[in-house]
Amino acid sequence: MGTGYSGSRRCRSSDGSTVEDLARWRKNSQEFHRRDSLEAAKTPAMFRDVRSGDDRVVLYTMESSHDGFRVDLTLREKGVTYSGKTINIVKGEHQTPEYTAINPRQKIPSLIHDNVVITESCAAMQYIEAVFNRDIRLRPKDPAQLGKCLQYIHEFELNLDPKNIADKVLYQRMSREQLVEEIEALKAELVIWDGYLDSKEYLVDDFSLADIAVFPLVAQLTECFGLDLKDYPNLQR
Amino acid sequence: MGTGYSGSRRCRSSDGSTVEDLARWRKNSQEFHRRDSLEAAKTPAMFRDVRSGDDRVVLYTMESSHDGFRVDLTLREKGVTYSGKTINIVKGEHQTPEYTAINPRQKIPSLIHDNVVITESCAAMQYIEAVFNRDIRLRPKDPAQLGKCLQYIHEFELNLDPKNIADKVLYQRMSREQLVEEIEALKAELVIWDGYLDSKEYLVDDFSLADIAVFPLVAQLTECFGLDLKDYPNLQR
Repeated sequence: MGTGYSGSRRCRSSDGSTVEDLARWRKNSQEFHRRDSLEAAKTPAMFRDVRSGDDRVVLYTMESSHDGFRVDLTLREKGVTYSGKTINIVKGEHQTPEYTAINPRQKIPSLIHDNVVITESCAAMQYIEAVFNRDIRLRPKDPAQLGKCLQYIHEFELNLDPKNIADKVLYQRMSREQLVEEIEALKAELVIWDGYLDSKEYLVDDFSLADIAVFPLVAQLTECFGLDLKDYPNLQR
Repeated sequence: MGTGYSGSRRCRSSDGSTVEDLARWRKNSQEFHRRDSLEAAKTPAMFRDVRSGDDRVVLYTMESSHDGFRVDLTLREKGVTYSGKTINIVKGEHQTPEYTAINPRQKIPSLIHDNVVITESCAAMQYIEAVFNRDIRLRPKDPAQLGKCLQYIHEFELNLDPKNIADKVLYQRMSREQLVEEIEALKAELVIWDGYLDSKEYLVDDFSLADIAVFPLVAQLTECFGLDLKDYPNLQR
């Protein structure tokens, strides 16, 4: 996982833009303590430019969002063409009446498919898996593996995701000094997830939604905030 | 939903103990401001006594836990017999080496089925649905309804669940005065969920995992903490 993800089996078979996106993310990324991440977030986002496709599937997101990246990755892994629309939170685009009508909580991402609107990334991921292209399976069929996959998705959502400091840095503009405890908690949590990948390439037997749940956050921490993965050898792979 | 749940279609077709459990919960429940909830939590729990069954499926939980209740309800809705074991957090039973080996985060619930261990209740719920008794469907087949169901599960997990004050009252022994802001945030969130049930009996077209995700928390707030549902007419139904 981690930066090694772009070379994974699944990504080779997708449209290849994962590598490109990560490179772009890296290019825009700034060291956490330089506080330039906010500037990076202001960069005209990639989605409107590089996406075109089926207007039946629309993803509203923003380049720096690991939540949006999770949905983006799932769509691409499943080979779904879609229209991407950038909602720039820094510019307040999430608070417009138009977007609020789509997502009353004024957050990103939002996935629209026909008349279905999904605003939670892990829900969107599972919806895409269930509805599109059954030839590519991201949810294990084997019960034991399925159990582990579901466990990791929800364990991520309830334990690792809440410890992510991105919002506090990007939008609350908190400094490294103000976040000492939070950073320690995040690092301790990353140690647990690194352990889950001990002598394994993926969280469950094969590449699955569990990896797609966790990877964007690790990528965000690495690429946008300069997290050094040397302490997490398994996440680094 | 809410207290009306015990009379719902699904529950009539299950083993009937939902009603009994809620009555027991009500009997043990105390008004929030009396701070006796902690004492209620010390009551010898029901699970060891009233459950017997297949030792291939074991649920570790505690009577006052809405997280455990969610798994319990799913098992019963699916007609799965199982062994229930009480882990009394007040007595520190979640910190024993035996239980820590099952659940390293030392939380409840834990579901064990053969060699699968699931420690997140919304993951357990979905695992049970996928693995047991396909004649009873708790995950909608229709894509639009499935999308909504998944959305509600994750929206609950990321928005309503974190605003629950149970832990702060029961284990951190915080008072109503200390929790003024948290109570207001919880009430505002409940208004949103009440709106989701506007002119609907269930969150999606039919009874689903979405209802099972949300109901135990509403029941806990109502029965253990004396939440008055009169402000939430749809949740009260």
